[in-house]
Amino acid sequence: MKNISTNLMTGVNYEMPPTFDDRDQIDTFLKKNCNKKVVVVQGLGFVGAVMSLVCANAISEDYAVIGVDLPTPESYWKIKSINDGVFPVISSDKKVGDFFKKSIEKNNFYATYDPYVYSKADFIIVDINLDVKKESSNRNELTSYDVDISNFKSAIKSIGKNCQENVCILIETTVPPGTTKIAEIILKEELVSRGLQQDMFYLGHSYERVMPGPNYIDSIQNFYRVFSAIDKKSEIVIEKFLKTIIRTDEYPLTKLNNTNATEMSKVLENSFRAMNIAFIVEWSRFAEEAGVNLYEVVDAIRMRPTHKNIMLPGIGVGGYCLTKDPLLASWSKQNLISSQASELQMSELAVKTNDLMPMHAFNFFTSFFDDNICKLNISLLGVSYLADVGDTRYSPVEHFYKMLLKKSTNIKLFDPFINFWEEVDKNVNTTIDFTEMVNEDTDIIVFSTGHTLYKGNDELISLLQSKNNLFIYDTIGVLNQDEIDLLLEKHTVKVLGRGDL
Amino acid sequence: MKNISTNLMTGVNYEMPPTFDDRDQIDTFLKKNCNKKVVVVQGLGFVGAVMSLVCANAISEDYAVIGVDLPTPESYWKIKSINDGVFPVISSDKKVGDFFKKSIEKNNFYATYDPYVYSKADFIIVDINLDVKKESSNRNELTSYDVDISNFKSAIKSIGKNCQENVCILIETTVPPGTTKIAEIILKEELVSRGLQQDMFYLGHSYERVMPGPNYIDSIQNFYRVFSAIDKKSEIVIEKFLKTIIRTDEYPLTKLNNTNATEMSKVLENSFRAMNIAFIVEWSRFAEEAGVNLYEVVDAIRMRPTHKNIMLPGIGVGGYCLTKDPLLASWSKQNLISSQASELQMSELAVKTNDLMPMHAFNFFTSFFDDNICKLNISLLGVSYLADVGDTRYSPVEHFYKMLLKKSTNIKLFDPFINFWEEVDKNVNTTIDFTEMVNEDTDIIVFSTGHTLYKGNDELISLLQSKNNLFIYDTIGVLNQDEIDLLLEKHTVKVLGRGDL
Repeated sequence: MKNISTNLMTGVNYEMPPTFDDRDQIDTFLKKNCNKKVVVVQGLGFVGAVMSLVCANAISEDYAVIGVDLPTPESYWKIKSINDGVFPVISSDKKVGDFFKKSIEKNNFYATYDPYVYSKADFIIVDINLDVKKESSNRNELTSYDVDISNFKSAIKSIGKNCQENVCILIETTVPPGTTKIAEIILKEELVSRGLQQDMFYLGHSYERVMPGPNYIDSIQNFYRVFSAIDKKSEIVIEKFLKTIIRTDEYPLTKLNNTNATEMSKVLENSFRAMNIAFIVEWSRFAEEAGVNLYEVVDAIRMRPTHKNIMLPGIGVGGYCLTKDPLLASWSKQNLISSQASELQMSELAVKTNDLMPMHAFNFFTSFFDDNICKLNISLLGVSYLADVGDTRYSPVEHFYKMLLKKSTNIKLFDPFINFWEEVDKNVNTTIDFTEMVNEDTDIIVFSTGHTLYKGNDELISLLQSKNNLFIYDTIGVLNQDEIDLLLEKHTVKVLGRGDL
Repeated sequence: MKNISTNLMTGVNYEMPPTFDDRDQIDTFLKKNCNKKVVVVQGLGFVGAVMSLVCANAISEDYAVIGVDLPTPESYWKIKSINDGVFPVISSDKKVGDFFKKSIEKNNFYATYDPYVYSKADFIIVDINLDVKKESSNRNELTSYDVDISNFKSAIKSIGKNCQENVCILIETTVPPGTTKIAEIILKEELVSRGLQQDMFYLGHSYERVMPGPNYIDSIQNFYRVFSAIDKKSEIVIEKFLKTIIRTDEYPLTKLNNTNATEMSKVLENSFRAMNIAFIVEWSRFAEEAGVNLYEVVDAIRMRPTHKNIMLPGIGVGGYCLTKDPLLASWSKQNLISSQASELQMSELAVKTNDLMPMHAFNFFTSFFDDNICKLNISLLGVSYLADVGDTRYSPVEHFYKMLLKKSTNIKLFDPFINFWEEVDKNVNTTIDFTEMVNEDTDIIVFSTGHTLYKGNDELISLLQSKNNLFIYDTIGVLNQDEIDLLLEKHTVKVLGRGDL
């Protein structure tokens, strides 16, 4: 099935194109959009796809936008899906649908796989992935990791081989600090080898702060943005561009001194978050052992403005960023910045600690059962890594579920945001009808993602109260104290980070 | 000189009392304060001394307050000083002086060393120290640590041997979680051995959030307070007491479920802080290596409400709490809560990382000099561990200074809040006249504490501009960008956490 790419939104199979020449379509699209500046977005993932929408619906400029991704089975469907009028991300943000609809009406958004497109671009936004290869034990414990920037370099090379003069290239990918400087060298080399002047391009780095939840679009368009450039002339061009797509009147741009600084800023932001989660992980275990309700402790501590960012207990850290960015940083420190530098010990330990969370969630859970757990019917509520988001990348629920599968096969999966759970190759029930999640056969309910749907929901609590002898496991603080008190009357309730139940 | 105790505020030597019987004085004091409830504060350190003032100036009750400390050379002077009308802490908070003056006028504050006082107490507040014994290498790297709670147990025993029935004991000391439960057992044993009923006392734990700076008093009286008790009856009595001394109408009390929870909450608060500092330490080194200004990066990141608590670079972590509380917690987890528990790995690493900061500050500094640094005149501005505070306990400047002493003896010490630097046995110049700190002989200026006096001070900047070729080392972010730009015209400026200078 090498030549088939399945649309993960619709299940439709697309045959891959026989050749990768899309020039005619691109030219036709651009003819319809003549006199418009052309923005090419390289990479149509969770950031690139929505960034394309934001550019196609720019605030103070009418751009022709072309998204580019690779003609591989994993990516081709996104291209085809966009051109077929189906946006390739399920989102709880209404604006995503609205923006996509508008771009169809305006006919100013096209997607392709042909690098020819770079030759037509006034602006190229780099939104491709740059992954960390993590090696882990079967406990999911990080044993080693490596960063390979060769794909990233190839993508930049592809731009350098095709781009026109005076193109403005804005790297948005989260990269190891030092990478934009490498991109600069590659671009210069390519331009020189094409007989062009080596500095006839603008280049900078700016990172998005996308949250693929209910404020998906706003997290790009209406939020603070940090940028930097390789030189003064690039700085001016990039600043001007960003002002056309972001509401900078309300959210002023922050300009940093050099590209290392913005690159570092991005991985630092995410490492800060990962670190604060890892920190509370250890205290969750401590609280469980000491008979303490860590939720009430954290509430007490958050009264202090200096301590507002302290995190709550949970099942684990997922998503594309927090699971790898501290490692990107540590790798950069040792490999790009200085060959004698030591690792970022605390940041690496943070990733290591967080990676072990699902295993603890599983051990804590199964400690209350013997082998006959295999006979019990389990409803797993939530497979996404984050509340109200249809994103299962590195979801901690994945590890929890895989470990649980070895003990029991009577597991029903529910998530209103996920049709098909790619990583475990299973369909997921998207119902929001609680009587399906909790029926007469259900023995165990696991809250595994903190979707708003499950929170403070009287209908759910009433339903649970009408049952007898359930085992309710809250891994993520879905239930509040009043609800727990009610449920304890008839059920067993266990909460991660709470030793007092 | 075993029988001499020196007043660190005034330099006056006191002869220690020949016997430790202070009954007559206590009785006389209480006779003058008859009909008042008696509050005894055990421990007259940075917390106990000020807590005494807050009780002596309670909001809705007129207490007779007696502070207790040990008749040792290290502590006796505090007792004598209070009774002589000199408060034993220098503070930038005007309210400290005001409150002390009022207590003298009302004659409702006395200090003693005689445990007899416990027999007169309605309330006993435990504010004694509970230290961690840290073993460190000569690089100041933590190699091992231990917690000895025997002194704390003795103090509780001393209360149990003397207290009257229905006394209310409130532990405020930062203790390893589990300690109040140990105190409860000790008190019961002592009461039983005195033929009293074993539960004729009230006991709880509540932690202060004292900041010994310009809001010293307010950090007790006008701030959120967390408490818990061993039982319902204790909870009621303690809550009532706290409401008489704290403005709970504006800062409502937080009641936690058990004493482990408040004990944990306190060490968690401080560990959170220590962790966040340690986290940024590593990134400071990274920034220095990558030519990045971490200050501007942190500013950019703090735009996000979820990242407001990210810290700034600095010379190190000092003070009594952050240097030990993560270890108290980790020790408790392994020794009081569970003998099979693992350590708090991240919290321990935080202490370890922070302890190494002064050494890096020193190495970074000396990397710009060769051996002839011994000929240069250095002004060290600030020896306190914290801005605007007269507190040198575990000051990071201590290690920095001691290492520097091996390279140079031409070091002048300045700090407006410190007369005498106990830990290094040196007098400190408290002048606020910059011409004394920077004169014609000065070659190097080190900003080692972030006192407000040094910040945004045009007089200082003008003076520096009138000089030539100074080496200015800012370890703590005293100088802003404009000032640095000005100073760079004539001087060398180096800032920890900034690789771009």
